[in-house]
Amino acid sequence: MTAPQTSPCPAEMTALANAMADAVRPVIRRHFRTRIAVDAKADASPVTIADREAEQTMRAMIAARFPGHGIRGEEFGLHQADADWVWVLDPIDGTKSFVSGSLAFGTQIALLHRGQPVLGLIDQPITGERWLGRAGEPTLFNGATAQTSDTGALAEAVVYTSAPDHFDAAQRQRYDRLAGRARFARASHDCYAAGLLALGTVDLLVEGNVHDYDILPQLPIILGAGGIATDWAGKPLTDAARFDTVLMAANARLHAAALEALHAG
Amino acid sequence: MTAPQTSPCPAEMTALANAMADAVRPVIRRHFRTRIAVDAKADASPVTIADREAEQTMRAMIAARFPGHGIRGEEFGLHQADADWVWVLDPIDGTKSFVSGSLAFGTQIALLHRGQPVLGLIDQPITGERWLGRAGEPTLFNGATAQTSDTGALAEAVVYTSAPDHFDAAQRQRYDRLAGRARFARASHDCYAAGLLALGTVDLLVEGNVHDYDILPQLPIILGAGGIATDWAGKPLTDAARFDTVLMAANARLHAAALEALHAG
Repeated sequence: MTAPQTSPCPAEMTALANAMADAVRPVIRRHFRTRIAVDAKADASPVTIADREAEQTMRAMIAARFPGHGIRGEEFGLHQADADWVWVLDPIDGTKSFVSGSLAFGTQIALLHRGQPVLGLIDQPITGERWLGRAGEPTLFNGATAQTSDTGALAEAVVYTSAPDHFDAAQRQRYDRLAGRARFARASHDCYAAGLLALGTVDLLVEGNVHDYDILPQLPIILGAGGIATDWAGKPLTDAARFDTVLMAANARLHAAALEALHAG
Repeated sequence: MTAPQTSPCPAEMTALANAMADAVRPVIRRHFRTRIAVDAKADASPVTIADREAEQTMRAMIAARFPGHGIRGEEFGLHQADADWVWVLDPIDGTKSFVSGSLAFGTQIALLHRGQPVLGLIDQPITGERWLGRAGEPTLFNGATAQTSDTGALAEAVVYTSAPDHFDAAQRQRYDRLAGRARFARASHDCYAAGLLALGTVDLLVEGNVHDYDILPQLPIILGAGGIATDWAGKPLTDAARFDTVLMAANARLHAAALEALHAG
């Protein structure tokens, strides 16, 4: 997924993605900074009422507009997952931020055509910030073109990761080496950090052991802003339910420097 | 500083604090998400033009309104520091968030009367969120009363820290033990996390090796919202240029549980 996509994203599907993000904003806003029940999923991440209501809203809109499309959602799983067009939904990416009142979360939507992401959307429902990436198109941030940074030296690069404790011990050692060579490293921003990478204020995003709905929506946004996304071996990310390692970089030179740091002995 | 203060905060000084926060908003907004020069201070934290312009703005306003007052600022140091009334200024707390485009930063202002904080203000200049604490008064968030949570069990508590790598090795071990017993832990939010503690969506804030301008503005806000602030030994925080350890808790029960976790063998 480092090369431009060949599948165009039809305008009516872009319109649906924007309409879904619009529709879930009031749902999520209604529950933000209220003290709502939180239960524990198998993986112990907090799940909120807002998460479920937002995904149900989006699923209903897809079913109404494109009943033949498939859906892969964080909360409610697979629906027609072998369809040509499949929507990947993460109503609240950064649930820990959401439940603790931070703004470092967002709604994520991807559209896959035969396994290739042709659309990615990140929406921050409280601030009204929206990133939209489409295959072969420049990434838009609130309608204006977004561009990754030209920071090429690792020592000058700002690194983000969602949570260092998502890494296993071997990954953590490699991440720590990279972070130690960077200008500084920050955490706890989830998809919002991908948005900042597209804006050019963050230079590297390093993730481990993440799901399709965490990452796939970010790919068209990063690529369309001039960035690169691979695994830690530098291999393209192909569609999968989970990704062991993800490395997103502002540009090719920094990507190469980051790969080198991840592999240095 | 766990008991209500006896020095009232005069209304005209509250008005100046609000006026200073209003005045620096456009200064900070002008530089947010632009790619400005960043140089390195002795302690390697990024310093921006916005930081300096904002502090100069506030210093000029204090000098004009209360020429006899003292000032302790992050960027430009001490001025009449032995005056009865001393302002403590941190124009951009969370500089790493600011330079990387995150909203997890804020302007911090404290007013000390003979060493006792009688006013604390946190302002997020992009979102327009403002926390105001005054000795003996309920904390206000955008004008409405803020209240810490009643979460009493550590296992249900959300813990924030600015950066785990600010701790020395012994502190880090103690922090990790506390964080490991909590519901979850997050980082990289600086003063914004203190605001969230006052709103009741974060339950514990744990800091190490911080400056007066990092912490003093937060004390009236936390206390006025029903919280507690001490060091890791449970001792009151008395005015100092630096604090080795800081523990802020939503309530007395959680404070006791957190102290126990920090000291367990």
